[in-house]
Amino acid sequence: MEKFEIHILGCGAALPTPKRLSSSQIVNIREKLFMLDCAEGTQMALRRSHLSFSHLQAIFLTHLHGDHTFGLIGMLSTFGLLGRIQDLHIYGPQDLQRIFQPQIDYFCADSPYKIILHEIDTKTPQTIYEDRSVSISTLPLSHRVPCCGYLFQEKPTPRHIRRDMIDFHHIPVSQINNIKAGMDWVTDDGTVIPNALLTTPSDPVRSYAYCTDTTYRPQLTELLCNVTCLYHEATFAQEHALLAKNTFHSTAQQAAQIALDAHAKKLILGHFSSRYKSEDILLQEAQQVFPNTLLAEDSMKIIL
Amino acid sequence: MEKFEIHILGCGAALPTPKRLSSSQIVNIREKLFMLDCAEGTQMALRRSHLSFSHLQAIFLTHLHGDHTFGLIGMLSTFGLLGRIQDLHIYGPQDLQRIFQPQIDYFCADSPYKIILHEIDTKTPQTIYEDRSVSISTLPLSHRVPCCGYLFQEKPTPRHIRRDMIDFHHIPVSQINNIKAGMDWVTDDGTVIPNALLTTPSDPVRSYAYCTDTTYRPQLTELLCNVTCLYHEATFAQEHALLAKNTFHSTAQQAAQIALDAHAKKLILGHFSSRYKSEDILLQEAQQVFPNTLLAEDSMKIIL
Repeated sequence: MEKFEIHILGCGAALPTPKRLSSSQIVNIREKLFMLDCAEGTQMALRRSHLSFSHLQAIFLTHLHGDHTFGLIGMLSTFGLLGRIQDLHIYGPQDLQRIFQPQIDYFCADSPYKIILHEIDTKTPQTIYEDRSVSISTLPLSHRVPCCGYLFQEKPTPRHIRRDMIDFHHIPVSQINNIKAGMDWVTDDGTVIPNALLTTPSDPVRSYAYCTDTTYRPQLTELLCNVTCLYHEATFAQEHALLAKNTFHSTAQQAAQIALDAHAKKLILGHFSSRYKSEDILLQEAQQVFPNTLLAEDSMKIIL
Repeated sequence: MEKFEIHILGCGAALPTPKRLSSSQIVNIREKLFMLDCAEGTQMALRRSHLSFSHLQAIFLTHLHGDHTFGLIGMLSTFGLLGRIQDLHIYGPQDLQRIFQPQIDYFCADSPYKIILHEIDTKTPQTIYEDRSVSISTLPLSHRVPCCGYLFQEKPTPRHIRRDMIDFHHIPVSQINNIKAGMDWVTDDGTVIPNALLTTPSDPVRSYAYCTDTTYRPQLTELLCNVTCLYHEATFAQEHALLAKNTFHSTAQQAAQIALDAHAKKLILGHFSSRYKSEDILLQEAQQVFPNTLLAEDSMKIIL
């Protein structure tokens, strides 16, 4: 299977601690890296992860609260000092330019690479990035400020060659890519060998959704249908459901309900309020609804 | 002795690493805390230090490069979330307001405490803060942008009471503070007991100077005369003296020369370029000029 991994750099809520940074992740798809949010300390966590800085393609910010963005300017500055030259695209809600362009102009004035800010409409789901490996689209969320999650959908991979059949029919190497793409083979005597005999099916297409910060939002389930892995904020336990509603956050149980209704394969909970000494209560409440749930941890890697 | 301690939160140069943050320190004078610079990750380092957030009186920024300021907005935001109510004063060179006020307005809009920015003239030494315990003045430095260091001078403490003499002369408790302040005692029969017999001298007055970032600047020595402890940047070893000059930084040997010429009691080197696998070469080069030198380390505490 091609690489599709999630690296949790930080999964805390508003208050970063020595144990847990605020929100930041890397999605590694076939050695292309995409960053989701960029809390203070992200560049140090990225170094600890031993992921290559230079493989970072783009950054996607869910919303412009500090616990999702305060690491951005420092990391951009460091990339410059390390000699990055390829463009870096940053996507985020309205105000992205007003707030970050002046900082970039001041602190990254000598930057050897271009930083391109893209303000996106967080209200309508749309595809905002696409390459040969992945398509990335927005997931409207409900928070106190404009906010959206992101859905990473892997592009289908070619079918797998059956080496024995290729040899048996003496199919030349030059035709292998066509066969992988689904072409039948016609022998010298005109016999058609159907592709299904020459190949096995391609790997199932995987997807990852990142949904933070948001109040419980049932409209998400349709967009998340059959998602391989869902990261959903679970700031509060059920005893604080009213607080969750008032602050536009979710409980762990609500996150699990979304996963259940969306037929997700796996749920990861994150964005934990620092009020809980242990997050076990969050895990238990979620697992009662959706058993295949786990708690995010800083430095955790999830292989899809 | 009253408390006078330096906590090194970060002592690296431009590139923060998991092992070493960029510049940040706390000066603790009699349980009042003063922050010097505020690199990314400072708030997490401050938590690790177990110093009380609420005892922070003021923040002093040497200059507006990112490795001295990127932790500011996150820390200010966190103070608000933790419910700080007392005003916080921040001192720094020109542009402080232009760069940081918009960030504060956006990210700390609901802040329950006031943040007051003070732009200071970095070219002329001046006292910018004073209370019963300490006076803080600026030290003009030579860097690529307006920059100054800071000199902390302890206020003299009262003389120490000789308990045996107080008892012998039956001096009432109500007079103790006057005696500490230097008053003689007149007995009922008119005999004058000179203060020198009733007290021992007060503790020597201590001082701390923080000088980073700067090229070698001999004019500093006069301002630093007899300083108890000098923290001076030592970005480079002597083999990179030209690079130091061109980038407006100092070598370890130059830092030591300043300490020697100023008759400092102790020198701490910091702001190490990340190019050196070990800073021992910096320590050796400095100690050849000024033996009582030590290398700063993150989480180090220096008791004056």
